Amino acid sequence: MINERLPKIWHGGDYNPEQWDASIWDEDTRMFKLAGINVATLNVFSWARNQPDEHTYDFDWLDETIDRLYQQGIYTCLATSTAAHPAWMAKRYPDILRVDVHGRKRKFGSRHNSCPNSPTYRKYAEQIAEKLAERYSEHPAVLIWHISNEYGGYCYCDQCEKAFRVWLKEKYGTVEKLNKVWNTSFWGHTFYDWDEIVLPSFLSEEREGNESDFQGISLDFRRFQSDSLLDCYKLEYQAIRKYDSQNPITTNLMGTFPMLDYFKWAKEIDVVSWDNYPAIDTPISYTAMTHDLMRGLKSGQPFMLMEQTPSQQNWQPYNSLKRPGIMRLWSYQALGRGADTIMYFQLRRSIGACEKYHGAVIEHVGHEHTRVFREVAEVGKELTLLSEPLLDSRVPAKVAIVFDWENRWAVELSSGPSISLDYVTEVHKYYKAFYEANIQVDMIGVEEDLSKYNVVVAPVLYMVKDGYEEKIEAFVKNGGTFLTTFFSGIVDEHDLVTLGGYPGKLRELLGIWVEEIDALHPSVTNEMIMKESWGKQRYTCHLLFDLLHTEGAKVVAEYGSDFYKGMPVVTRNSFGNGEAWYVASSPDDSFLGDLIGHLCEKNDVRPFLKVPKDVETSVREKDGKTYVFVLNHRDDSVEIDLQDERYLDLLREEFCSGKILLERKGVLILEK
Amino acid sequence: MINERLPKIWHGGDYNPEQWDASIWDEDTRMFKLAGINVATLNVFSWARNQPDEHTYDFDWLDETIDRLYQQGIYTCLATSTAAHPAWMAKRYPDILRVDVHGRKRKFGSRHNSCPNSPTYRKYAEQIAEKLAERYSEHPAVLIWHISNEYGGYCYCDQCEKAFRVWLKEKYGTVEKLNKVWNTSFWGHTFYDWDEIVLPSFLSEEREGNESDFQGISLDFRRFQSDSLLDCYKLEYQAIRKYDSQNPITTNLMGTFPMLDYFKWAKEIDVVSWDNYPAIDTPISYTAMTHDLMRGLKSGQPFMLMEQTPSQQNWQPYNSLKRPGIMRLWSYQALGRGADTIMYFQLRRSIGACEKYHGAVIEHVGHEHTRVFREVAEVGKELTLLSEPLLDSRVPAKVAIVFDWENRWAVELSSGPSISLDYVTEVHKYYKAFYEANIQVDMIGVEEDLSKYNVVVAPVLYMVKDGYEEKIEAFVKNGGTFLTTFFSGIVDEHDLVTLGGYPGKLRELLGIWVEEIDALHPSVTNEMIMKESWGKQRYTCHLLFDLLHTEGAKVVAEYGSDFYKGMPVVTRNSFGNGEAWYVASSPDDSFLGDLIGHLCEKNDVRPFLKVPKDVETSVREKDGKTYVFVLNHRDDSVEIDLQDERYLDLLREEFCSGKILLERKGVLILEK
Amino acid sequence: MINERLPKIWHGGDYNPEQWDASIWDEDTRMFKLAGINVATLNVFSWARNQPDEHTYDFDWLDETIDRLYQQGIYTCLATSTAAHPAWMAKRYPDILRVDVHGRKRKFGSRHNSCPNSPTYRKYAEQIAEKLAERYSEHPAVLIWHISNEYGGYCYCDQCEKAFRVWLKEKYGTVEKLNKVWNTSFWGHTFYDWDEIVLPSFLSEEREGNESDFQGISLDFRRFQSDSLLDCYKLEYQAIRKYDSQNPITTNLMGTFPMLDYFKWAKEIDVVSWDNYPAIDTPISYTAMTHDLMRGLKSGQPFMLMEQTPSQQNWQPYNSLKRPGIMRLWSYQALGRGADTIMYFQLRRSIGACEKYHGAVIEHVGHEHTRVFREVAEVGKELTLLSEPLLDSRVPAKVAIVFDWENRWAVELSSGPSISLDYVTEVHKYYKAFYEANIQVDMIGVEEDLSKYNVVVAPVLYMVKDGYEEKIEAFVKNGGTFLTTFFSGIVDEHDLVTLGGYPGKLRELLGIWVEEIDALHPSVTNEMIMKESWGKQRYTCHLLFDLLHTEGAKVVAEYGSDFYKGMPVVTRNSFGNGEAWYVASSPDDSFLGDLIGHLCEKNDVRPFLKVPKDVETSVREKDGKTYVFVLNHRDDSVEIDLQDERYLDLLREEFCSGKILLERKGVLILEK
Repeated sequence: MINERLPKIWHGGDYNPEQWDASIWDEDTRMFKLAGINVATLNVFSWARNQPDEHTYDFDWLDETIDRLYQQGIYTCLATSTAAHPAWMAKRYPDILRVDVHGRKRKFGSRHNSCPNSPTYRKYAEQIAEKLAERYSEHPAVLIWHISNEYGGYCYCDQCEKAFRVWLKEKYGTVEKLNKVWNTSFWGHTFYDWDEIVLPSFLSEEREGNESDFQGISLDFRRFQSDSLLDCYKLEYQAIRKYDSQNPITTNLMGTFPMLDYFKWAKEIDVVSWDNYPAIDTPISYTAMTHDLMRGLKSGQPFMLMEQTPSQQNWQPYNSLKRPGIMRLWSYQALGRGADTIMYFQLRRSIGACEKYHGAVIEHVGHEHTRVFREVAEVGKELTLLSEPLLDSRVPAKVAIVFDWENRWAVELSSGPSISLDYVTEVHKYYKAFYEANIQVDMIGVEEDLSKYNVVVAPVLYMVKDGYEEKIEAFVKNGGTFLTTFFSGIVDEHDLVTLGGYPGKLRELLGIWVEEIDALHPSVTNEMIMKESWGKQRYTCHLLFDLLHTEGAKVVAEYGSDFYKGMPVVTRNSFGNGEAWYVASSPDDSFLGDLIGHLCEKNDVRPFLKVPKDVETSVREKDGKTYVFVLNHRDDSVEIDLQDERYLDLLREEFCSGKILLERKGVLILEK
Repeated sequence: MINERLPKIWHGGDYNPEQWDASIWDEDTRMFKLAGINVATLNVFSWARNQPDEHTYDFDWLDETIDRLYQQGIYTCLATSTAAHPAWMAKRYPDILRVDVHGRKRKFGSRHNSCPNSPTYRKYAEQIAEKLAERYSEHPAVLIWHISNEYGGYCYCDQCEKAFRVWLKEKYGTVEKLNKVWNTSFWGHTFYDWDEIVLPSFLSEEREGNESDFQGISLDFRRFQSDSLLDCYKLEYQAIRKYDSQNPITTNLMGTFPMLDYFKWAKEIDVVSWDNYPAIDTPISYTAMTHDLMRGLKSGQPFMLMEQTPSQQNWQPYNSLKRPGIMRLWSYQALGRGADTIMYFQLRRSIGACEKYHGAVIEHVGHEHTRVFREVAEVGKELTLLSEPLLDSRVPAKVAIVFDWENRWAVELSSGPSISLDYVTEVHKYYKAFYEANIQVDMIGVEEDLSKYNVVVAPVLYMVKDGYEEKIEAFVKNGGTFLTTFFSGIVDEHDLVTLGGYPGKLRELLGIWVEEIDALHPSVTNEMIMKESWGKQRYTCHLLFDLLHTEGAKVVAEYGSDFYKGMPVVTRNSFGNGEAWYVASSPDDSFLGDLIGHLCEKNDVRPFLKVPKDVETSVREKDGKTYVFVLNHRDDSVEIDLQDERYLDLLREEFCSGKILLERKGVLILEK
Repeated sequence: MINERLPKIWHGGDYNPEQWDASIWDEDTRMFKLAGINVATLNVFSWARNQPDEHTYDFDWLDETIDRLYQQGIYTCLATSTAAHPAWMAKRYPDILRVDVHGRKRKFGSRHNSCPNSPTYRKYAEQIAEKLAERYSEHPAVLIWHISNEYGGYCYCDQCEKAFRVWLKEKYGTVEKLNKVWNTSFWGHTFYDWDEIVLPSFLSEEREGNESDFQGISLDFRRFQSDSLLDCYKLEYQAIRKYDSQNPITTNLMGTFPMLDYFKWAKEIDVVSWDNYPAIDTPISYTAMTHDLMRGLKSGQPFMLMEQTPSQQNWQPYNSLKRPGIMRLWSYQALGRGADTIMYFQLRRSIGACEKYHGAVIEHVGHEHTRVFREVAEVGKELTLLSEPLLDSRVPAKVAIVFDWENRWAVELSSGPSISLDYVTEVHKYYKAFYEANIQVDMIGVEEDLSKYNVVVAPVLYMVKDGYEEKIEAFVKNGGTFLTTFFSGIVDEHDLVTLGGYPGKLRELLGIWVEEIDALHPSVTNEMIMKESWGKQRYTCHLLFDLLHTEGAKVVAEYGSDFYKGMPVVTRNSFGNGEAWYVASSPDDSFLGDLIGHLCEKNDVRPFLKVPKDVETSVREKDGKTYVFVLNHRDDSVEIDLQDERYLDLLREEFCSGKILLERKGVLILEK
């Protein structure tokens, strides 16, 4: 339970009442209640309001707001307001301002604008977090702390440069070790002293498009910046904990956001929360994957959907409305995959500045007679039926997909073999195959225990960290099925190549040797000719093409053309009681569908329900009961066959079995 | 009359004789006379030549040039030369150099390179204008002053930042008011002191593509920079007026140039002049619209065509030649829409630097036996027939289209709903429908009196300035027909949303409420199903799609698809004696053609002549006489039917009536 | 002979053993010998290793490496290591760091990172070159000096600005002269003192895409930067010559690299060497042209292929493998066109940093059992058969194509008439026509003697340098055939237009006057209607279209459409005993094929062998013998008909004649 004082699925969102006259506030509260809102996120960007100068703090407006809402039964998710510093602070202490990758000192403006290694920022951010904790830790309205907001961005200033050197010294001890792991003898970059090291920016080693001359430097810089922001988070966390030992603390993450190592962050976060903003062309399976990833950050613990738009965004190129039913459908997708809250940005639309055309529960018209409000209120009403059964339930999975930010950085930084190789895209290809088969998947980090899974998939496991190959080997020896792909096992955690033949430390497990890697324009395909009979006879593949030799592995498929026609493109290797698969190119979706079907069947992994195409199912479990979410993403109604099983339909509050008609964009939540 | 000392249509252009030896000058004069040139624009970029150091001025060459030309009957349009400062000034006074939007201090180079708030620039620019006025105000050759050249560009230096604060203080008085209108409580940007304010640049609030985090700040910055350059202009204006109270003063504008609020500028300009450089794919209706806009800047007063190329440009991607007859045809388009001059850039082609491949009356070959020269000379000869009847005549119109730079800035700065929404494109769509029907249109600013029009169209009137809704209401009450579109009535002049439902202050007038705005990729269309019978049964629309409810208005057309199928897409509302129309999406051209036809018919607005497609007509009037321009833009000859009316054909100097054959690219100018 | 101590075709490459433990070194040497490697390029990026601080030099590792290799029969190509300065130097002497075109001071990082006018860089670069020469000039292993590496890049720092002023003063003497040649009176840029001059950067006169406001300034800046880097090269050259008067000195060039005037550089280089990195879509004729250009830099003297990849690159978007046989085929293309070495980057793949996915003779797997290694070893073996006959042989040609970097800069900088006009593309169009006819061509600079040629082609000879027209006239008078194209004869070496009619100084020779130049989008074509009967009746052309009048020339073809239909598009003019051709637009390939066929036939220029399409031939000659290279670029085998001639097949070591089957990607080297 996130906080037992509100033992419900939270329904709420960001609220910034400072923009309007007090005259509007009572209307807001009235409508929040109409919409079933029970939590408001306050104070996200109010630092300048709260602290008009170095010595003065003024929380009267916040006292008033929290109390006013609480009197109407609305709780507070309390932000610390440190995601944008006050203008006076920037003027007085320019060290607080970031320097960008071009080496340009920023001026006051925008948000996410503070240097994470600025002493001024750290001091005042810690101080205001402490002040807030001191004042509100005992307030009955406050349920959870929301530190800063959507952490991100890198800084390239001199104080970051100095901090980077300290970080490196702690990590490597000697300059000799540093030279070794960064391979500085290439291009004569040997360092003789720590203070010769400069940040990798567009003025030194990097260029547009994740290009770097020294991957090792750039990789460590990403680790360092992720850590620097995490240090800022931790300072505030500890400041709050001085006064509040009870309420959970979070910061809102952003799904597959590239800049921070969220698995490392999650260790410092009590409840994972995240902001879900799919674009009109985001595959629904991608959103599902992201929910599963956010759930995986803390090994399956329920998470918060901290933000979604009730209708449209403002920052996409074409900000289409969420069609009728979509907001509800996607809210239940979050719930079905482990969320225990449904929250919106924003409760009321801003009157000015860049988010005034971002959707809100209360639109500019200011009343409740809008389509958007009605849909929010409908969800609010339904959630009251779901809290008791669903809260704190878990999402079971026998399949895991490995996701690792450091590996991702290394793949993105790689110079060659192909600019079209995108780590997240390749991961999603595999995820999608499971998703379309309605097989539940855990998205896991490299520290996760593998023994609970039947199947583990690690696409593009380019970087094999120290000892990880042993973990996988143990998993397979014990009967597990492991699958990886091209561009795996190539480097260690410093991005240094494992000499002796690809795929390096995975070579024995996989029973292959990859001699060469061909890269062709993504429009060029090869054929995969099947040597086994569990699918079609041939498929296509593209992107990268390993030229490999088996060393014990069996050939599942071979190339159909080019000069490596007849060489293996898919192999599987018996290893202990299990099997290790290798896919040497990026296959078409139909291959992946058949492959995943085959692996699941062999490993006795099955979907809970058989449903028509484009109908998503997911399962949560609690106290011996199973809750099945059935989401119809189609534009027509479909028949769901529950067969002879008897379920309780939680939304309709009636029992059901046999064939049920589910309307377009409709949702079933079944208890069994 | 621009200047009674030369009571003719001026035929001339820019002349920069300093590039060549004196040996060439007599040839120039001889050829100018052959071409019927009567005005030369001198001294545009001669500041460095005129002022070799801080204390020395040397105008001998200019004396000589003005005199030499005048002896041959060629008058002078005298520029003040302040559009590019001397190198020595940049070296000695770096404050004169601009800082760009990236925060980079510029070095000496290019042109339009002076910071408008530089004390040095202002001092020396004013001084040289005064010196010139003192020397030449009585010179009989000098007809008009040409201050600087094509003002434009913004500066982001520290002195501009300080000046911005002063400008804001004058405008808003208190920081509290400023915080209110900029809605700084959003993202915690509250200011406590004026000197906390920084310019909105790529280092603070803005990004590539008119993106800004605070529209209010960015909007005021554009106003401020437009004003800053205007202040520079005014300083020179006043300096000239110390010595010259007679001759008119202008600066050459650039049509729909985005950076300056030309309606505000026009108040300080005696005669509007502008530079017309259509690209090969510029719609001819767009050029027509721009002429009408330039005429509209001073409420219909005749304007100068200060620059056009006789043949080709150098700065377009593909600098095609103007085909035979095109230069003449487009010159008469200018004349037909209110110009009283036809002038060229340049009289002689430069020998070096970036404009040496820009067309000129005298080409590099240096003699008159070229196609281009012959065409110029032909126009020169014809103009002598037209001066008496046309000079100072006016262009009558019963239709107006509203154009407003501040509204345009706000639309461009808007974050959402669609990056494909372009203000000028939408205005031009409506203009084009009138143009193709040969209905004369005035392009007017928001200060223009509306009572003289039957129909007023204000596409995307996003920003409704204080009281403007009342002006429109009064116009409609009195029987006028008003039309506006989606994304209108949304904000006030600070870009703050008018709460209470779109289209805000226009809601009552239009009799509608816009609940939501959908934005889809421009390639996605909806259908407009007509409920009235004055056109086709269905049309298409795209871009934005308002979901609106009528509140008294009649539905003219409704959507044919998507979830808002059946909701109104075009409405009209009776209001007083008039009618207010609303078009909720961006329609195809055929709808606009039919709509405009319908509105004109209802309002008794008709073209002067019926002519075939792609033949343009326009009308000027003077002393009870009407002058009809008929321009054949087609590649074949067409028959023009004058019916029983008898006209004097001014170019052929004969009377005509009935059917006339007009050759390809041919021109008729008829007096009646 | 490059160096008589190794009188063989060198087979080698870059070797950087510092990245690995000593344990690997013996394996390296063993495999080098297996592959027939006889030269290793050492020390390319080892400055930081060699000089750990200002006063210390440490060459022990280099001594050891050179000796170790030499003991196994592998010689050294010794680099001076100055292409990347040490980090300590950048920290201590920031003047060594470049400033980029945006005005941004670089930080330590990357390579090619030293300001060429930095006193620090010059001092230490000279010093280390001298130290190396002192130590190794007598070493029997050292065959050649390799100064720096792939010189390139411009610097825009203050010391470059000062040096530019000195360079200008030396060139022009007075500011008046400078103002004249830069035509500064345009836009009022008149300079009164040298120190008012600033570098043309994105902060002053230039913009993205070779755009400049003052072509004259930008042109001189390119000359100046090319000279500045050349000065650095010369400093090292002279330092080496203090101790070594025997061994040749080179630096590796990069083919058609735009930034340096390689014809000027070649005068200071003893043996031209270059790095050949065709992309997968580089036309094979383009590579051939580049080899011929590199050979032409020193008037036909054999050159070194200093670098090519054995398999793939890392820095292309899609780094495809060289297909089987391709590396060998392309190696022989180099040899056939004048190379006396075949060398690779790199001998062993790097373990880390940005080139670790660049192909190498020894791959990461570390053994010789790879496809790539086998292909290298095959070439190595074959080369032993070829050294004696081929070394120092020459490539005969009766046709020359003029290539000039300064002309190229001027064309690229030109504002107008078309952004699609690319000098190298136009040159290659003509080259390709000769290439496809297997006519040997010399790519020559403007200082080359023309009298040895029958045909000289100078596409887009925009800039005609002082006296060059006389050289061409003399060539034609003596019976030569000269051909040039549109946009020729326009400017002098300062980019000032030659007044009096295009094509300026070539007008009399060509017997034409170009009145106007039309530029249309490249997708727009015109027709060429032939008035002579040596080809088809009509062809197409595009890009630019001169409107020209003959003044004595005969019309070969005329335009088929547009308003200049019927005007000449190809002319030829008898002049003395020869003929001067002019092609007024950019023709299709079939026209150029027929034209070149016609000119060659008229001038008795014939291919050595008749071979099928896509089979390349080239010829080298020595001591009265002729060596014919026959390269089958096709994907199938072809029949080569040697007719009754009897040749020695050097690779198969047997005599042959009559019809021979040449396998796909196969090579014949025939001696006669």
